Amino acid sequence: MFEVAEIGHKLSKKQFDELTPQLHTRLLEAQFKLQKTRHSIVIIISGVEGAGKGEVVNRLNEWLDSRGIATNAFWDETNDQTLRPDYWRFWRALPARGNIGILFGSWYTRPIVKKVFGEIDAAEFERQLKNICEFERMLADDGVIIIKLWFHMSKEAAVKRLAKEATLRKAAPETQKYLEQYDAFLPVCEQALRETEQSSSPWHIIEATNKKYRDATAAEIILNTFLQHLDAEQQHQESQHKETHFLPTQPTVLDHVNLDLSLTKKAYSTALNLAQNKLNTLSWEARKQRKSIVAVFEGWDASGKGSAIRRVTQAIDARLYKVISTAAPTDEEAAQHYLWRFWRHIPLAGYVTIYDRSWYGRVLVERVEKFAKDREWHRAYAEINHFEEQLYEHGIILCKFWIHISPEEQLRRFEERAKVPWKKHKITQEDWRNREKWHDYKTAIDDMVVHTSTQHAPWTLVPGNDKKYARINILNTLNQAIEKSLDSSSN
Amino acid sequence: MFEVAEIGHKLSKKQFDELTPQLHTRLLEAQFKLQKTRHSIVIIISGVEGAGKGEVVNRLNEWLDSRGIATNAFWDETNDQTLRPDYWRFWRALPARGNIGILFGSWYTRPIVKKVFGEIDAAEFERQLKNICEFERMLADDGVIIIKLWFHMSKEAAVKRLAKEATLRKAAPETQKYLEQYDAFLPVCEQALRETEQSSSPWHIIEATNKKYRDATAAEIILNTFLQHLDAEQQHQESQHKETHFLPTQPTVLDHVNLDLSLTKKAYSTALNLAQNKLNTLSWEARKQRKSIVAVFEGWDASGKGSAIRRVTQAIDARLYKVISTAAPTDEEAAQHYLWRFWRHIPLAGYVTIYDRSWYGRVLVERVEKFAKDREWHRAYAEINHFEEQLYEHGIILCKFWIHISPEEQLRRFEERAKVPWKKHKITQEDWRNREKWHDYKTAIDDMVVHTSTQHAPWTLVPGNDKKYARINILNTLNQAIEKSLDSSSN
Repeated sequence: MFEVAEIGHKLSKKQFDELTPQLHTRLLEAQFKLQKTRHSIVIIISGVEGAGKGEVVNRLNEWLDSRGIATNAFWDETNDQTLRPDYWRFWRALPARGNIGILFGSWYTRPIVKKVFGEIDAAEFERQLKNICEFERMLADDGVIIIKLWFHMSKEAAVKRLAKEATLRKAAPETQKYLEQYDAFLPVCEQALRETEQSSSPWHIIEATNKKYRDATAAEIILNTFLQHLDAEQQHQESQHKETHFLPTQPTVLDHVNLDLSLTKKAYSTALNLAQNKLNTLSWEARKQRKSIVAVFEGWDASGKGSAIRRVTQAIDARLYKVISTAAPTDEEAAQHYLWRFWRHIPLAGYVTIYDRSWYGRVLVERVEKFAKDREWHRAYAEINHFEEQLYEHGIILCKFWIHISPEEQLRRFEERAKVPWKKHKITQEDWRNREKWHDYKTAIDDMVVHTSTQHAPWTLVPGNDKKYARINILNTLNQAIEKSLDSSSN
Repeated sequence: MFEVAEIGHKLSKKQFDELTPQLHTRLLEAQFKLQKTRHSIVIIISGVEGAGKGEVVNRLNEWLDSRGIATNAFWDETNDQTLRPDYWRFWRALPARGNIGILFGSWYTRPIVKKVFGEIDAAEFERQLKNICEFERMLADDGVIIIKLWFHMSKEAAVKRLAKEATLRKAAPETQKYLEQYDAFLPVCEQALRETEQSSSPWHIIEATNKKYRDATAAEIILNTFLQHLDAEQQHQESQHKETHFLPTQPTVLDHVNLDLSLTKKAYSTALNLAQNKLNTLSWEARKQRKSIVAVFEGWDASGKGSAIRRVTQAIDARLYKVISTAAPTDEEAAQHYLWRFWRHIPLAGYVTIYDRSWYGRVLVERVEKFAKDREWHRAYAEINHFEEQLYEHGIILCKFWIHISPEEQLRRFEERAKVPWKKHKITQEDWRNREKWHDYKTAIDDMVVHTSTQHAPWTLVPGNDKKYARINILNTLNQAIEKSLDSSSN
């Protein structure tokens, strides 16, 4: 989930200076328009220690009109607050219609800190997260616009910044203590974000290493949320708002996949043999232990999904696996919730189901091609996480692969296919059309990884320019996941 | 919550025979119309053992057109089902668009049974309930109409019916076992219903003692839900559907308040003295133990709320309490969520807040006078329960009083007020107008008690025709609640 915010997003001073005047103006305009509506706005500023949340708050106060904005910090609990129910202090800080409340620390802070320091157990933590969902939904139902910003930095970057600030004596007293717990905080924060993602109050994860990028992105997100609600207000219906972008295109997680990785034929042949033998043994052992395996294959057109899947199925006894190719839904499937057709193929204990394309179609092709409405595909992140959580809780081993190739490599493969008679059928006009939407898909994939790469169901981004490397990568990942999940004592 | 289904709702054979032909016809018409929409319908049949759920299922299958209906029972888990994640079997049973799925037993059954028999703890139970909420919300978002029926009987009635059925050898094998746990089931079921009440999938509690009433009411609820969605479908907007009623007016919980109860002047005077002294002592002790008290007063116009409150405040030191009179919201309050103005007055630990009218205005006057939209006041039940749960969890003692009087007694008091110069100001045109809506208010009060009388925040329905009796009743109830909550060891 946080991997998307560790890839070096940045703005140069020049870029920043160029875009801020316009961003600033547009923000103010939108703020003034919103003041006349029944909406109030809650902006939650949260994230890892050292990410400069205070600086962001200052910047927002500078860029927005200060009338009708109140900033509330929730880090120091007064006596007055603990003597009343938890949420009393948040109710007090809620802005009136037309106004903006910036919450520096929020209803997330205490549950997360308590969980990290072991003061509450897993069940209580989950209960508190669900209470947050109910609270936010109640506010959203009442017209409150909730903007949740999470500022992330890698541990290295955070330590480095802290060291710098310590010499400047700018660090807050708790910072050091929390930073020491960085690794403990991360999974807890991930769970908090995942379980409180709602289409009416989505999370935005912002890389905070570069301060200019951080502030400009926060402002751009806030502006777009404002515009979206103003648009909906005018139309008296669902927003058709097209996002406005001020920032230059930034790298995505896919740009960080090293596409130069490759294997020689010989190395491949040896590795394949080893990996397939292992997978065969493991799949029988999984059957014995009644552990199911679900493997999801997604990737660009011509990325080699089919041939990678064949390397997997070659290794598994035919009685044990099923491959589900996801095409357009049948009549029967279209008459149901989109998840229905995937639920029906969930394997019996001990068996393997391989999905060649999957439920992720909802947030990829259905999003890009506008088959699903904005609120539909956005809601799908939470629905998918909830679905995968149920698989995980049932003990199912879940692996998700995105096979990545470069656009150049795709073009090479398309042209090859067009030339070779027995490959011609594999390439259609649609493939060429999809290629034109490469950028839209990239955005969708990035969002997908942010929202659905979770601890118990992580995405594996497979470097696919070299098919041999990709196949071995996939087999090894599968083997590791199965091995980790099997009860080794019974071997 | 279940008290509304223990008051003897019934239909005679004649009444039943008169209304069923029309009900049956309208149901079929609505069913055929719904088949052409994108909605599918899930009807959940649940409730106490012995309530005749099987008979209801049979009746619905008889009254609805059998094409496009499937009944699924979830009481006997096959091997095939336990080998997959819990919800797999429910997904399998979901009806396609245009169709109806009757679920006899459902996703509620297992969590409730497991909780009663101690197989899961409170936190896990709550987690499973929240998962149910997410699941149902996901379906509703996708256009599934979810109708949740809960059939209730008092223990006595259930035992009696079971005895009768045992001689006829009609009872299912588990019935006896579950019936023995009646008292253990009740609070667990109440919690399940309370925490899964959502405006997109509300619960309907039906008294099942009289079979004709039971079946006709179930059919009427289903019909009204159908009509409501058909209406929304046509209007492409929020439903304006006015409920259709086939059944004759039935008694409500208020009809079961014994208004003949009274006290002599002498008995009153002695009891008042005792109760006020006790309340004084208890309020100081509560202050010492930092326990807050929240008392809510609701009731008909001229029911004597004001004078009852004075009998309470007379007993408490003026430094300890605050009386909040709820009138129309101020500008500042109107710019916030409706609960905001009640949150702001939540007492500090050890203090008392008395609300003269309260957040219940949302589901009473705002509902009846249509100040709140249907979905707004309906959503409020869950919002209120969630709010009161937070008070309860914080250790606040919460008492809710509805002071009930008969319409005749109200008229007498109105006329008296009109005559006496210093009481004239207490009666306005609005009071007379409200009086005309007595029946609408009664329905709203009944619904309010169903949805918000919970174990930790029960309603006390106070017989108010005799003011003396009412006051003593209130003081004693308050005293008992405080006494129960205080830590007696420190006395």
